[in-house]
Amino acid sequence: MKTFLDKDFLLNSATAQKLFDEDATMKKIPVIDYHCHINPREIYEDIQFKNITEVWLGGDHYKWRQMRTFGIEEKYITGDATDYEKFEKWAECMPMLIGNPLYHWSHYELKYYFGYEGTLKPETAKEVWDFVNAKLNTPEFSVRNLIKKSNVKLICTTDDPIDSLEWHQKIKADAGFDVQVLPAWRPDKAVAIEKKDFKDYIAKLSEVSGVEITDYETLKSALIKRLDYFSENGASVSDHGLEYVMYEPATDNDIDVILKKALSNQSLTEKEVLQYATGVLLFLSEEYYKRNWVMQLHYGCTRNNNTYMFELTGPDTGFDAISAGTPSKHLPQFLNAMAKNNAIPKTIVYSLNPVENAAIGTIIGCFQGGNIRSRIQQGSAWWFNDHYEGIKEQLKSLAATSMLGNFVGMLTDSRSFLSYTRHDYFRRILCDLIGDYVEKGEYPNDEDYLKKITRGIAYNNAVEYFGFDLDKV
Amino acid sequence: MKTFLDKDFLLNSATAQKLFDEDATMKKIPVIDYHCHINPREIYEDIQFKNITEVWLGGDHYKWRQMRTFGIEEKYITGDATDYEKFEKWAECMPMLIGNPLYHWSHYELKYYFGYEGTLKPETAKEVWDFVNAKLNTPEFSVRNLIKKSNVKLICTTDDPIDSLEWHQKIKADAGFDVQVLPAWRPDKAVAIEKKDFKDYIAKLSEVSGVEITDYETLKSALIKRLDYFSENGASVSDHGLEYVMYEPATDNDIDVILKKALSNQSLTEKEVLQYATGVLLFLSEEYYKRNWVMQLHYGCTRNNNTYMFELTGPDTGFDAISAGTPSKHLPQFLNAMAKNNAIPKTIVYSLNPVENAAIGTIIGCFQGGNIRSRIQQGSAWWFNDHYEGIKEQLKSLAATSMLGNFVGMLTDSRSFLSYTRHDYFRRILCDLIGDYVEKGEYPNDEDYLKKITRGIAYNNAVEYFGFDLDKV
Amino acid sequence: MKTFLDKDFLLNSATAQKLFDEDATMKKIPVIDYHCHINPREIYEDIQFKNITEVWLGGDHYKWRQMRTFGIEEKYITGDATDYEKFEKWAECMPMLIGNPLYHWSHYELKYYFGYEGTLKPETAKEVWDFVNAKLNTPEFSVRNLIKKSNVKLICTTDDPIDSLEWHQKIKADAGFDVQVLPAWRPDKAVAIEKKDFKDYIAKLSEVSGVEITDYETLKSALIKRLDYFSENGASVSDHGLEYVMYEPATDNDIDVILKKALSNQSLTEKEVLQYATGVLLFLSEEYYKRNWVMQLHYGCTRNNNTYMFELTGPDTGFDAISAGTPSKHLPQFLNAMAKNNAIPKTIVYSLNPVENAAIGTIIGCFQGGNIRSRIQQGSAWWFNDHYEGIKEQLKSLAATSMLGNFVGMLTDSRSFLSYTRHDYFRRILCDLIGDYVEKGEYPNDEDYLKKITRGIAYNNAVEYFGFDLDKV
Repeated sequence: MKTFLDKDFLLNSATAQKLFDEDATMKKIPVIDYHCHINPREIYEDIQFKNITEVWLGGDHYKWRQMRTFGIEEKYITGDATDYEKFEKWAECMPMLIGNPLYHWSHYELKYYFGYEGTLKPETAKEVWDFVNAKLNTPEFSVRNLIKKSNVKLICTTDDPIDSLEWHQKIKADAGFDVQVLPAWRPDKAVAIEKKDFKDYIAKLSEVSGVEITDYETLKSALIKRLDYFSENGASVSDHGLEYVMYEPATDNDIDVILKKALSNQSLTEKEVLQYATGVLLFLSEEYYKRNWVMQLHYGCTRNNNTYMFELTGPDTGFDAISAGTPSKHLPQFLNAMAKNNAIPKTIVYSLNPVENAAIGTIIGCFQGGNIRSRIQQGSAWWFNDHYEGIKEQLKSLAATSMLGNFVGMLTDSRSFLSYTRHDYFRRILCDLIGDYVEKGEYPNDEDYLKKITRGIAYNNAVEYFGFDLDKV
Repeated sequence: MKTFLDKDFLLNSATAQKLFDEDATMKKIPVIDYHCHINPREIYEDIQFKNITEVWLGGDHYKWRQMRTFGIEEKYITGDATDYEKFEKWAECMPMLIGNPLYHWSHYELKYYFGYEGTLKPETAKEVWDFVNAKLNTPEFSVRNLIKKSNVKLICTTDDPIDSLEWHQKIKADAGFDVQVLPAWRPDKAVAIEKKDFKDYIAKLSEVSGVEITDYETLKSALIKRLDYFSENGASVSDHGLEYVMYEPATDNDIDVILKKALSNQSLTEKEVLQYATGVLLFLSEEYYKRNWVMQLHYGCTRNNNTYMFELTGPDTGFDAISAGTPSKHLPQFLNAMAKNNAIPKTIVYSLNPVENAAIGTIIGCFQGGNIRSRIQQGSAWWFNDHYEGIKEQLKSLAATSMLGNFVGMLTDSRSFLSYTRHDYFRRILCDLIGDYVEKGEYPNDEDYLKKITRGIAYNNAVEYFGFDLDKV
Repeated sequence: MKTFLDKDFLLNSATAQKLFDEDATMKKIPVIDYHCHINPREIYEDIQFKNITEVWLGGDHYKWRQMRTFGIEEKYITGDATDYEKFEKWAECMPMLIGNPLYHWSHYELKYYFGYEGTLKPETAKEVWDFVNAKLNTPEFSVRNLIKKSNVKLICTTDDPIDSLEWHQKIKADAGFDVQVLPAWRPDKAVAIEKKDFKDYIAKLSEVSGVEITDYETLKSALIKRLDYFSENGASVSDHGLEYVMYEPATDNDIDVILKKALSNQSLTEKEVLQYATGVLLFLSEEYYKRNWVMQLHYGCTRNNNTYMFELTGPDTGFDAISAGTPSKHLPQFLNAMAKNNAIPKTIVYSLNPVENAAIGTIIGCFQGGNIRSRIQQGSAWWFNDHYEGIKEQLKSLAATSMLGNFVGMLTDSRSFLSYTRHDYFRRILCDLIGDYVEKGEYPNDEDYLKKITRGIAYNNAVEYFGFDLDKV
């Protein structure tokens, strides 16, 4: 029996252990976190957390969902209970989370950052609270030091086209901090023409870009201005969040008419909404291609499913789910439209529905080329799938239907400065899988190529694919 | 190599074996069978079976399907062959059923109830026939004694609202039998307004309830009368069988109009059928909530797929299948409608399509709360999924996307008095999974919590969740 | 650690190894390849390959996709680079294909046919090129000798109804070659009424059949003539390629009208296209039933997804993918229509979407009978699923939801004369699974039945099911 969370956690063979220790552990192979939701201002200001509840339970809807699932009152989740009361309630949930990634992540974080070796449960809640808080209150545990402890070389945040990027600029200008913190372009509000705040958003975009948006041409000009601004500030990654990948082609004239209708408060048909979204995404994809940016497509999520709770706690508080529609039905058609003239940008596809793994592996295979290793990638197991089985299934599916050795690997997609250990979590699973292939004689014990594959997926492939200004390891 | 079906069957680690022996085996931890299809009259009358064919092949369409798959003539399945001939034919199928749950279940039953240690195959058919029948013909193998041998404390049958519950009352009044046999409410005929026999059914419901049903208000009154009657008779569980979970909202007035159309023999549109079903289910869900009942939703099944055989053998004879539509598309919307005012009843969701596991795990997460551990549950692997892989996948998915420790666990869903061993089958797989987590260092070897989790899923969680009048173990 | 590709490759237990060595290896248990795409002329002419690029990279779009995924220029894939340059580029891809079936297949072929014991990578490209080509250029490596080396007893090619079957006849007449090479009937062009070349095709069919096709009756007559001709030439297998299984019933009169519209260049609605396809398939299924043929249904593929590349390289060059629609929604209805009067032909169902495994296992269970072991079969993991996980999942699903012991097993579906080793690959996975069941005590170590099951799936079941003129082993 292995001890819980020992040094060979999730590494079930000698080959896996060796690969992790030599070619994957964060302690040795650094981290590129090319997609997350942290606030760059907190990095610039190098904030410190008052206590573990602030870091863990301040905004983590993953944990909130589980607290509700344990039957805990909302008061202790998003309500006005004290920080210690909330922490105690979370500790009560922990033992029942057997097999859940939160059980692993939480303990990994306690051990990696704070050196706590026990387990969190009601009986140890006070001990953990005191142990962790004592450290959190020292300068060693400021945000910047947490990032350094995590061996992070580069972070891409998630930013709206109208963002000033003030904090990215300040971080860059600060000689005392050498981790690259780059903006990433997330123009969802410019795409979601059906939303109530669209017109207001367009007004803000006009203001920020200096281009008065009155039609599709001026919208494009404004977006190009901002794309250029993001580029000047180091961006090379974009991201789109979609309920599903649509493909409803229309001419620029059609889109112009649709946009004008929206701007004059006329209602749109569902088809018009899809035509507009298809058109804007295709326009942006061309701009990404020209700039050699990477386009990310996140889809397959149905949001805010519980109206009662939405009215109480708002969005992003734990009420989203995997969409069971047919999300990738139009994915090949959308990619095909991008691929005309073979000018398809580098693209990473993430579906929230894991049943699409095999289909995605074969669909991306239809759009490879351009002298790029896996121009089209299937993204790492996303959100609800970011657990042991989900990660392993994505890796195995990618290996079987595409080319695992090209994979750009892990990202945290997180709002927390303690989430970087998810890179280690991912890398352990990766090494376990590769180790298993080797131990079972399904791949030769060829140390040079094993190193190349492992370091590639952990770090080097991302350097190469995104074109980041970093050396390979 | 392990011997087939030895004491450590399906338990592949020392931890798994210990957990099963101490905290899971039916011999020690009793059984709550909260959903099955047995006939309470047979319990009251404490019937005995003439021979093994009566028990095994009398109504078990799982076995009939396999006999047809082996190419056996219908005469030996539902036809007029002798009981021994039928048994012999079943024995011929057995060896080809490698990897099938029927292979495991059949042998588990032979061993657990009768002490038969060999395997069933053509060469042993006569031996098994004689061995088992000799025991079946003794009083020790009456229905009540089979239930006691299975350490069952409580059974919920499946009953129509118009059922008199006569046999439940007689069993309760019988001091000689202390297992609780409770009715469970299954109002499918009151929901299926599109069926030919709907009007006749409503007439019967009028008669039994004493409420003349002429509109939606009187229908509700009649159902409430029967709900109260079921409550008085100890019911706290309902069940609904649906091809898919619909959500087509309508006002009470709309539903009133639709119901009156049906009662006056006018045809309904598909939308009206869905509106009626949505409305009645939402009405019932409020009543369940008021009574603190549990609502079960079984869906994802396409029935009577073979018209030729349907005309020969009728329904429930082995011609149903997993529906490949998009069954959970409206599930979140339906749950959301139930959840308004946060008055959602405890609900268990079962989809027949295992590809929905991950989606369901995330959807139920949007409706938890109410100070109940897993108010919304994903039901145990159902029907065609009730096999080793299906059970393990459901458990792993539930662990990864929800909270395994809260799970209410297994039910037989069976028509047979030998099916209780499926609880052991399930518990072995559960212990194997938990044991594996511990052995691999993915969960600490914390004996107190392992006991709590295992006994919880085997028994205690169901006591707590359903509010049964039973002590925890 | 096992050596890569050693004699026990993929066989992870002693029982698995014994089963493979005694009851499964191609060296001992021969091969029936009942569905492939090789050219019978090449067999008749007993051609030889100039070099390994000709065999491996001449038409293998599996490899082409991977080369594009590695970022290789089209010049080295389908372009005018030299054969050695192309081979070198392929060698570059190899190490990154960890976990991919092409890694296994390629090395298995190098070892089985040529005795090459190393691995292919950039460093060994020249060595492999020389080693293999030296052998390929000897008579021992002619097409016929490759087939014999593979212990193949029977091959079904894929042939259009208008094919003269000249090469099949010549092979049959050639006393020097005793492997049966039979035509298989693939009438996709007669079904695809929506295609531009439909009318031309019908003209050719008229000519070849000697029946002037002017309406549905004459179309049927022409098809019957050709079915009879195929029967005379030894065919007993048909195949249909569909994007999804449709069911849109229509009368013969309706179909007659639709056909006449198509033949007079009128455009058809989507519904008419489906009605025609449904009608023709149902007509053919009756003819198959009368002749005791096997009907194969391949569906779930979306083809030619990349328009840009389609214009450059044409169809079947690596731009197809798994279709994510709802392909089996109508499958039960279509099978039900075939099953009226219980006159359903033996049918093998292959979906390209592996998420359908469980549904298919339960759907085929609704149409069994007719004194045939698994009259309706789920076909072996197809195309993109023909890898370790895909094969194992299909086997486990078939075992759990149907009857594994009846399975007709593997086919290559290949265009290459080196692909027969995929039968060994499949059989190793099969033996590993069965061995695992036995080692873990989930099936008894009953040597007689293990032999019967293993040899059955490897060979004997296909002999029995297809009615081939071969002795069982």
